[in-house]
Amino acid sequence: MRIGIVGGTGKEGLGLGLRWAQAGHDVIIGSRDPERARAKATELAASAPGRRIEGMSNRAAAATADVVVLTVPATGLAATLPELREACRGKIVVSTVVPLTFGGPRLFTPPPQGSAAEEAQELLGTPARVVAAFHHIAAHELSAGDHPIECDLLICGADAEGKQLVSELGRSMGLRPIDVGGLANAGPIEGITALLATINRRYKLKNSGIQITGLP
Amino acid sequence: MRIGIVGGTGKEGLGLGLRWAQAGHDVIIGSRDPERARAKATELAASAPGRRIEGMSNRAAAATADVVVLTVPATGLAATLPELREACRGKIVVSTVVPLTFGGPRLFTPPPQGSAAEEAQELLGTPARVVAAFHHIAAHELSAGDHPIECDLLICGADAEGKQLVSELGRSMGLRPIDVGGLANAGPIEGITALLATINRRYKLKNSGIQITGLP
Repeated sequence: MRIGIVGGTGKEGLGLGLRWAQAGHDVIIGSRDPERARAKATELAASAPGRRIEGMSNRAAAATADVVVLTVPATGLAATLPELREACRGKIVVSTVVPLTFGGPRLFTPPPQGSAAEEAQELLGTPARVVAAFHHIAAHELSAGDHPIECDLLICGADAEGKQLVSELGRSMGLRPIDVGGLANAGPIEGITALLATINRRYKLKNSGIQITGLP
Repeated sequence: MRIGIVGGTGKEGLGLGLRWAQAGHDVIIGSRDPERARAKATELAASAPGRRIEGMSNRAAAATADVVVLTVPATGLAATLPELREACRGKIVVSTVVPLTFGGPRLFTPPPQGSAAEEAQELLGTPARVVAAFHHIAAHELSAGDHPIECDLLICGADAEGKQLVSELGRSMGLRPIDVGGLANAGPIEGITALLATINRRYKLKNSGIQITGLP
């Protein structure tokens, strides 16, 4: 599977790329700046020897990939996604984006659409098969590729095949996938990240996460 | 401690009342209908012999209690709370209220204030010390008073003393309290209940819950 990570030069994108490369996937790091993407891809390749890791523009990353993963900041969606519409047509697009605003009265600040994932769906149009996932997996945990991640993978979206594929991408890094319904649940899923960020600050952690209890 | 449960004749209110009575607290079940409150209090007393459990109007329950717990439906806040302003003045008021709308396009439907807890704070006025908690503890688990509840207690609010007291009320029923910052985080906390309700339906459960990982 070729996974294109849009905005992939940040901590979360590189952490996901590392885990997927380790699991045997081809990884394409995308960035507004293709030079920066190539530099980060080279760094990442040093951590995952023998894996195919490339860097290119966001548009080329999306066009080349089988599945597109969004790790841009929430404030960057409106500037980044419109030019990816054609590249994302018919593809599964995984939004990991969390609308947080630090330093304001409220940490969780979803857009009028209800969630960053729903904003992404609107910007990419209906041919993109948007699934929301990976919001709670701390970059700090992802980049420490040598130990298991103690966090469940909450997934929502309208596309059953997309959720199945995202479940496999999660299992490939040792996560337990949990299907949490349609994209209208993306807001509450994204909101959990605000809680984890608050818990990290109050309890001086880098890697709090969540698990669902009561499942068989 | 005398705990007054406003809207306490529903499953969640009676479940919390049972656990707190078992822990040795005095419990007052409040209802719009004092007769119904008394009948439910009598039923509850049969499950917690030797404990002081009374039923009365919502206003009398709030006025008599040391701490007030709100378990009314989200749609009932605007009708119920204005007449409780004086009774709640200076008291810790615990909002367990979750703004869910079943059968619509979106399960989690917070009010314009951002959360049911912030709406409650607005309706009761600043002298009420609103803390949000107990949104994720399934009524089904609470009413089965004979086994431990596998769920963390997420708490937020501006009042540190209030959060301390709610932590004690949680510990008295075996829950691990976690401080998740100010009342502006109540929306994301309430939103988790939409996810648990979705998970319960999809996985045919009655009692999914959440735990925070990574804490010492």
